[in-house]
Amino acid sequence: MVQPWQDTTLPAPVRAADLLARMTLEERLAQLYSVWPGSSTDGEDVAPLQHEMSEDVDLDALLPHGLGQLTRPFGTAPVDPAKGAARLADFQRRVAAANRFGIPALAHEECLTGFTAWRATVFPTPLAWGASFDPALIAEMAAGIGDGLREAGIHQGLAPVLDVVRDPRWGRTEESIGEDPYLVGTIGTAYVRGLQSAGVIATLKHFAGYSASRGARNHAPVSIGPRELADVILPPFEMAVRDGGARSVMPAYNDLDGLPAHAHTPLLTQLLREAWGFEGTVVSDYFGVTLLESAHRVADSPGGAAALALTAGVDVELPAVRCFGAPLLEAVRSGGAPEPAVDRAVLRVLTQKCELGLLDPDWEPQPPPVLDLDPPRLRELAARVAEESVVLLANSDGVLPLGDGGRIAVVGPLAEDPAGMMGCYAFPRHVGVEHPDVPMGVTVPTVREALAAEFPGARLVDDPAGADLCVAVLGDRSGLFGRGTSGEGCDAPDLQLPEGQSELLDALLESGTPVVLVLLTGRPYALGRWADRLAAVVQAFFPGQEGGRAVAGVLSGRVNPSGRLPVSVPRDPGGQPWTYLTPPLGQVHDASSIDPTPLFPFGHGLSYTRFDWEAPQVDDPAPATDGETSLRLTVRNTGDRAGTEVVQIYLRTPVARVARPVTRLIGYARVPLRPQESAVVHVTVPADAAAYTGPDGSRILEPGRLFVDLAGSSTDTRHTVELTLTGEKRVLGHDRRFGCEVSVK
Amino acid sequence: MVQPWQDTTLPAPVRAADLLARMTLEERLAQLYSVWPGSSTDGEDVAPLQHEMSEDVDLDALLPHGLGQLTRPFGTAPVDPAKGAARLADFQRRVAAANRFGIPALAHEECLTGFTAWRATVFPTPLAWGASFDPALIAEMAAGIGDGLREAGIHQGLAPVLDVVRDPRWGRTEESIGEDPYLVGTIGTAYVRGLQSAGVIATLKHFAGYSASRGARNHAPVSIGPRELADVILPPFEMAVRDGGARSVMPAYNDLDGLPAHAHTPLLTQLLREAWGFEGTVVSDYFGVTLLESAHRVADSPGGAAALALTAGVDVELPAVRCFGAPLLEAVRSGGAPEPAVDRAVLRVLTQKCELGLLDPDWEPQPPPVLDLDPPRLRELAARVAEESVVLLANSDGVLPLGDGGRIAVVGPLAEDPAGMMGCYAFPRHVGVEHPDVPMGVTVPTVREALAAEFPGARLVDDPAGADLCVAVLGDRSGLFGRGTSGEGCDAPDLQLPEGQSELLDALLESGTPVVLVLLTGRPYALGRWADRLAAVVQAFFPGQEGGRAVAGVLSGRVNPSGRLPVSVPRDPGGQPWTYLTPPLGQVHDASSIDPTPLFPFGHGLSYTRFDWEAPQVDDPAPATDGETSLRLTVRNTGDRAGTEVVQIYLRTPVARVARPVTRLIGYARVPLRPQESAVVHVTVPADAAAYTGPDGSRILEPGRLFVDLAGSSTDTRHTVELTLTGEKRVLGHDRRFGCEVSVK
Repeated sequence: MVQPWQDTTLPAPVRAADLLARMTLEERLAQLYSVWPGSSTDGEDVAPLQHEMSEDVDLDALLPHGLGQLTRPFGTAPVDPAKGAARLADFQRRVAAANRFGIPALAHEECLTGFTAWRATVFPTPLAWGASFDPALIAEMAAGIGDGLREAGIHQGLAPVLDVVRDPRWGRTEESIGEDPYLVGTIGTAYVRGLQSAGVIATLKHFAGYSASRGARNHAPVSIGPRELADVILPPFEMAVRDGGARSVMPAYNDLDGLPAHAHTPLLTQLLREAWGFEGTVVSDYFGVTLLESAHRVADSPGGAAALALTAGVDVELPAVRCFGAPLLEAVRSGGAPEPAVDRAVLRVLTQKCELGLLDPDWEPQPPPVLDLDPPRLRELAARVAEESVVLLANSDGVLPLGDGGRIAVVGPLAEDPAGMMGCYAFPRHVGVEHPDVPMGVTVPTVREALAAEFPGARLVDDPAGADLCVAVLGDRSGLFGRGTSGEGCDAPDLQLPEGQSELLDALLESGTPVVLVLLTGRPYALGRWADRLAAVVQAFFPGQEGGRAVAGVLSGRVNPSGRLPVSVPRDPGGQPWTYLTPPLGQVHDASSIDPTPLFPFGHGLSYTRFDWEAPQVDDPAPATDGETSLRLTVRNTGDRAGTEVVQIYLRTPVARVARPVTRLIGYARVPLRPQESAVVHVTVPADAAAYTGPDGSRILEPGRLFVDLAGSSTDTRHTVELTLTGEKRVLGHDRRFGCEVSVK
Repeated sequence: MVQPWQDTTLPAPVRAADLLARMTLEERLAQLYSVWPGSSTDGEDVAPLQHEMSEDVDLDALLPHGLGQLTRPFGTAPVDPAKGAARLADFQRRVAAANRFGIPALAHEECLTGFTAWRATVFPTPLAWGASFDPALIAEMAAGIGDGLREAGIHQGLAPVLDVVRDPRWGRTEESIGEDPYLVGTIGTAYVRGLQSAGVIATLKHFAGYSASRGARNHAPVSIGPRELADVILPPFEMAVRDGGARSVMPAYNDLDGLPAHAHTPLLTQLLREAWGFEGTVVSDYFGVTLLESAHRVADSPGGAAALALTAGVDVELPAVRCFGAPLLEAVRSGGAPEPAVDRAVLRVLTQKCELGLLDPDWEPQPPPVLDLDPPRLRELAARVAEESVVLLANSDGVLPLGDGGRIAVVGPLAEDPAGMMGCYAFPRHVGVEHPDVPMGVTVPTVREALAAEFPGARLVDDPAGADLCVAVLGDRSGLFGRGTSGEGCDAPDLQLPEGQSELLDALLESGTPVVLVLLTGRPYALGRWADRLAAVVQAFFPGQEGGRAVAGVLSGRVNPSGRLPVSVPRDPGGQPWTYLTPPLGQVHDASSIDPTPLFPFGHGLSYTRFDWEAPQVDDPAPATDGETSLRLTVRNTGDRAGTEVVQIYLRTPVARVARPVTRLIGYARVPLRPQESAVVHVTVPADAAAYTGPDGSRILEPGRLFVDLAGSSTDTRHTVELTLTGEKRVLGHDRRFGCEVSVK
């Protein structure tokens, strides 16, 4: 007889509830944790089941209760993709066979800049996505990443990172999309849609505030109040949940004003579930539940930590069973943890497994006989993201694009280093570094190799002496926990170029040879020291395996640069943190000897062609507070090359109930134009976009004046439209609109 | 007939209310603002009544309504004290004669490191007060300062600064007492008691959060949540209001999580007035009301700014009439500002004037014919504070104390600079720098001069070559708004020694001559670069006019150093902010490449003698949550010099509801001991000291384990006492005890 939970015609929550009711407490708890296989490169057998960072588990004793998750079967060691998929399928059969309901595990993987697996395409890092200002392309990229994950048997990807950059010294800045919540929210939501379109659950992280840690030290406390949290940190998560339909959320390691995110009932339950209506799973960050006891010290035992996390709203412990196993069982039995909280979490997990087909009677793992995680289609996508994300910061002598000829010195520590292309969640940086004898697995042309191919008529040399031009390739090596100059756990004390590269650049400039600076970095660095002496500056943010060609294409002009800065580039290394989302007293001000004005502002980027922006037409300069208005702007390419303009729309509020940023992004669009071609940019500005969190904590919108800037960057306004909101003061709910709809015709 | 307001037998609020009822709206508003006389050094006439930073006022039109305050009659230009007092008396007679009630103005002055007036004693800066760990001495100093103010005709002093150091890059760190709220609260409260014992109103500033500005940039936004505010920032203010009886409070320039302090009803009214019962006046920081319009942009007119500040709880606009004059009059008349809020403020002002005797029928200004603001008594006090506040950080070779002989090189930019002794609120730095032709007004021996006097048998030279020892005198020049390396508006991008002094120290050490580093600074600087190469390090925080002699006395051994660090001295210049009040994840942690562990921790300081700490006796290891326990600790001087030990008491909470600092100061005492002498330190530890702000915002205290460390610094624990709180969980009110009572017998 078919039980309700096996009936695929019933809704997933109904099936999950039926199954839940049939389970013992041990079986229910087993759905709330994971195991982490250890590293094995043989690809033949199921790997040893203890990762070095997980505690001992007896799989034979564990599996009869079932298993909620499986941690990183590909992202732990270099495994041939097809063999890894077969091994995963074998493991899943074992899991399903061992429990009386035949439920397999939900397998998760890292996938931020592509599937974090050997031989998988390495895409540009999220700062580069932000620089592209191209959500459609990022969605396409994420869909491609999701295809590989799904084919390999992975159900959930631990991406995207939606932390808004608050202090670029933070090592994980490279994993973030930018310093503006609207940019992060729109690009991040596109990633979620793309990944989930492939049938893979996206995981929003890190919820919330992680990027604002004190001193930019990873895991350090976050001093933040409810308004900054609501207006800067949370909008990308709200957008990705509401507009992106994200199915999973991961809390952050940090505390917020003392309360650890993994124990943060107001965030995990009251906001995420009750206000936003989120129905997916909340999965802990790795060891995040344990840290409640060992580091935050808000629990005095593993069971106490489990009870705290569970009741706050954490459904699943990752990466391996510790607190949510025997300690939580004991806590439930002794009354230290409420059983309804267990059932709430299990219902969410089972609902998701049901939606994934894992509870279907005919479920069978189907490993592909051949699995290419770096197919031409993905490499082409990686190239497009790289090309759209390279930012031409300066070209004061018009030295770029370069002709094909002469003697070009290509120098600097990253000129011939593939690592300069990759962020810390790319497999070669994340895992591969621990396996130095294993090939990288993907082809990553260096800048020098790409320049050699791009300029067949030029002579590339290693020394500026006698060269016509010097291309200095500087930047970061990304790595984990002190192994790099950028990346998770690689925080910078200030924003000077790392590892003596400032002195190298000084020396290069002293030679008198014109220097084109190419930066491959995971954060912005202070460039004021050389501001007026560089022939050109090209900023790439870890542009992925096709990044060398993209940079070379920008230098040659094959690629007309269209990237725009998702983070401000500072003038001086100290005085951090600063981002452009700052009220007047946080900007340059005669009260402080520190001038935080950036050298290159948020949104800045040059092109090899010119664009004319005609005066905009406005439908209604006095929309209602619950209404909207429309603008039309004609942009024309008046140069002789095809190119893409990025129209940016900023909002200024002349007076408010609290101190507000001087300006902030509320819309944008890429406008690709052939020479002499023009296009009309249609912008719908909802009054909602002017809302903010007022003194009493509610999101308010009042009648009054606003300025909408049509701009080439946050400081390069081409036209300003003055609006006057009319009608009643409003208090907005979570159905609000975050920014403009923009279309290009 | 004597009116009630003239009847000195009636309580002040009754008299004030009677007077209030007789006043026109213009007369009432006139009590809420000030005028700022311009600078005049002739000392003969009443100075021009417009300071360059105040707007034009027509005094003849203004004074018939009365006048609330008079701004800085001494602290604006170098004025002979007695002539200034006579001039002030003349002006007061004019004010009183011009209004129909005969009310004079309340005159205020700056007085942080002494009366900010020409020829007044310059005391050490507040960081030095913190280093003294000696509230009784600071109270005595403040009483001395108050005597001078009162004699000069000043009623209110704009001190102390109770901002807890949160980021030592902030230029006003020198004006702060330290990075621990209990130290700031106890020392600051002592200052309040001392100043007010002389009949002068103390003004607590800056309320609140100012020291936590983003990037330590002066006036920048403050990201802070309610728990950090309640547990770190506010306790010194609460202590100074409740235990110190402070009569005035000044809001801060900054916003807190978006809401400007000058418009912060929750702080200025709900907390300060309603919860703490404060009955004095709230006076704006200079131009703080105007900034609501011009910088915070939370008001669209001067009248709007006035209405916002007034209703939030600001009673008086300083330094000159702008928003609280005609704009507020118009706002009240048009209904834009509530008249009861005006009356509330006026009542507070008149009550205070009544308490000061300014409403008494026989009031007459009484300028002294002779006024010495730098008498021997104050100079001696300045010397004592300086001597107790010099911190011997390192003496690894036992090179100190120095014998009297040999060849001593005395080098460094501060060796012969009196400015190295003074903070930015000392008259010579604050005002004198604008009058370079006027003598400094006080005698300030430099380190070199003091060394010459201290070591008559030694030969002092300018160069290390051939010297037996080098005394390198490095540090800050304090100044205002970019004129110095420390002080208001002189924020540092990082914590490296300013102005090339790092390279100077490198060069000195290369010579091979042993280097004794003497620091005269307004903030801690990173010393890790030279940690193992310096013969000794002596840290003084702008030690005042007697500071040179104090430093020389420490070098000779005449003064046995007893200062302890009120701020951590970092190892590296970057990675800020950091203070010792940090939970485990904010300390050194393998998740970040930045190790913030300081080179010298909070509370550290060496002596030339040795102290033995016997094991403590504990009365009750299990006090109730509403109780207390007592400890007795015997400390013995086992060396051969008289010296003072500073016993510090820290509390560690092994588990709490929120992430808590690893340790924090809850008590301390100086223990002066002759050689071989011992003393018993009696410590009463109230359970209250373990309370903290919990997840729901209430101040809670729960039964459970605590560790009380008896320690020589925040990391140098000599004995630990384990306590177990018993009884019920409590929610504490504002009658709580903040720390231990400590007595030495």
